[in-house]
Amino acid sequence: MVVDTEPRMLKHQVVRKSLDSLLEGMSPGDPFPSERDLADAHDVSRETLRQAIRELLVAGRIERRGRTTVVAAPKVVLPLAIGSYTEAAREKGMSATRILVGWSTYSADAELAELLHIDTGAPVVQLERVFTTDDTRVGLETTRIPADRIPGLIETFDYRTSLYAELRTRGIIFGPVVDTIETVLPDAREAALLTVDTRTPMFLLNRTSYDDQGVPIEQRRSLYRGDRMTFTAVMGA
Amino acid sequence: MVVDTEPRMLKHQVVRKSLDSLLEGMSPGDPFPSERDLADAHDVSRETLRQAIRELLVAGRIERRGRTTVVAAPKVVLPLAIGSYTEAAREKGMSATRILVGWSTYSADAELAELLHIDTGAPVVQLERVFTTDDTRVGLETTRIPADRIPGLIETFDYRTSLYAELRTRGIIFGPVVDTIETVLPDAREAALLTVDTRTPMFLLNRTSYDDQGVPIEQRRSLYRGDRMTFTAVMGA
Repeated sequence: MVVDTEPRMLKHQVVRKSLDSLLEGMSPGDPFPSERDLADAHDVSRETLRQAIRELLVAGRIERRGRTTVVAAPKVVLPLAIGSYTEAAREKGMSATRILVGWSTYSADAELAELLHIDTGAPVVQLERVFTTDDTRVGLETTRIPADRIPGLIETFDYRTSLYAELRTRGIIFGPVVDTIETVLPDAREAALLTVDTRTPMFLLNRTSYDDQGVPIEQRRSLYRGDRMTFTAVMGA
Repeated sequence: MVVDTEPRMLKHQVVRKSLDSLLEGMSPGDPFPSERDLADAHDVSRETLRQAIRELLVAGRIERRGRTTVVAAPKVVLPLAIGSYTEAAREKGMSATRILVGWSTYSADAELAELLHIDTGAPVVQLERVFTTDDTRVGLETTRIPADRIPGLIETFDYRTSLYAELRTRGIIFGPVVDTIETVLPDAREAALLTVDTRTPMFLLNRTSYDDQGVPIEQRRSLYRGDRMTFTAVMGA
């Protein structure tokens, strides 16, 4: 005997479920109905509707284009992996590239020096790039490498290519890595670079890579749009 | 020669850095200075200060306790793993337990039926629990299992214990699993159960577990507070 004891849904959950059904019949790029029309159709307050809309935006089901709202393309699903996310996206048949935000050279502060096993004040090269898939900005990656490790990199490296591949070409062998994964909100600069607002949850991946001798190679900070990216992790039993 | 070409910081980043330094000298539970005092001390607008405060809240560095704000305990760092997060927390020396939200029995809709390889309308048992570490509510887990798989579970299972351990006792052997990891905002009910506001980014882990014959055992939806949890993932080179 099955007794239906599923908890009652809140009003905005009912609206959300109805909007989910509506979206199933629509295609990426289709205009999404206006807030006012939807509030009238569901006989709920604008406030209740706004909460459901906000969830759909964060979930990456819809997106703002100027003053209109359209159905979004599905999220990009990529494996949590040591390799290049750009290469992973290309393997999935997406176009993917990197946009240069900037190179910097500066002196390591105490915290970075400790992470990279270098002296405080030692020169560090920083490379900042935006990652795109199918022309959408999805990630912002900041890599910091001891300058001694990579003479001439700034002059010769093509920023559209994989930095890991370049480092391997230079004879560096990577050991295993541990990433920490957090959710954060972007600051104003990050939000601008990734064309989101500052209320959009992000994935923050932090990694220190070591070579096969256990010497740190790089400290990497990768920020990925939560409304555009899903990660997968395979775990053995 | 090292030229300092690090990008100039935005005003709120300067404030954030100053507040980070302030926090380093404080202990969990210490009262955090008021917004007004901090705005005066940094000579910035309340708006600028509020952004920095909001970041610290989302980052889990500070937390609201009623009308006051205090320094938060460090985030819980747990490995992304197939096993029980409660057991993992205990191994790290934290107290950890589970609070029962509810058991339900209902009929699978088409989507759930497909995930669990059962007929639409077949009975499913749902268990919803809140996870705590050191008396803080950190996660909300919803598990759905075909009722046929687990006769008598509702009557006999101690919800404070590991469901995986119970299923193993019943002779189920787990195969490897794939989790998807997303960031979402909680809805009103979820926020209330986890004692956060609806603007706090969450981790959403979705998993379908299979046994060693490839038959689905459960569909699991785990929501973890982004301000309280960091995950780690180890990746081979």
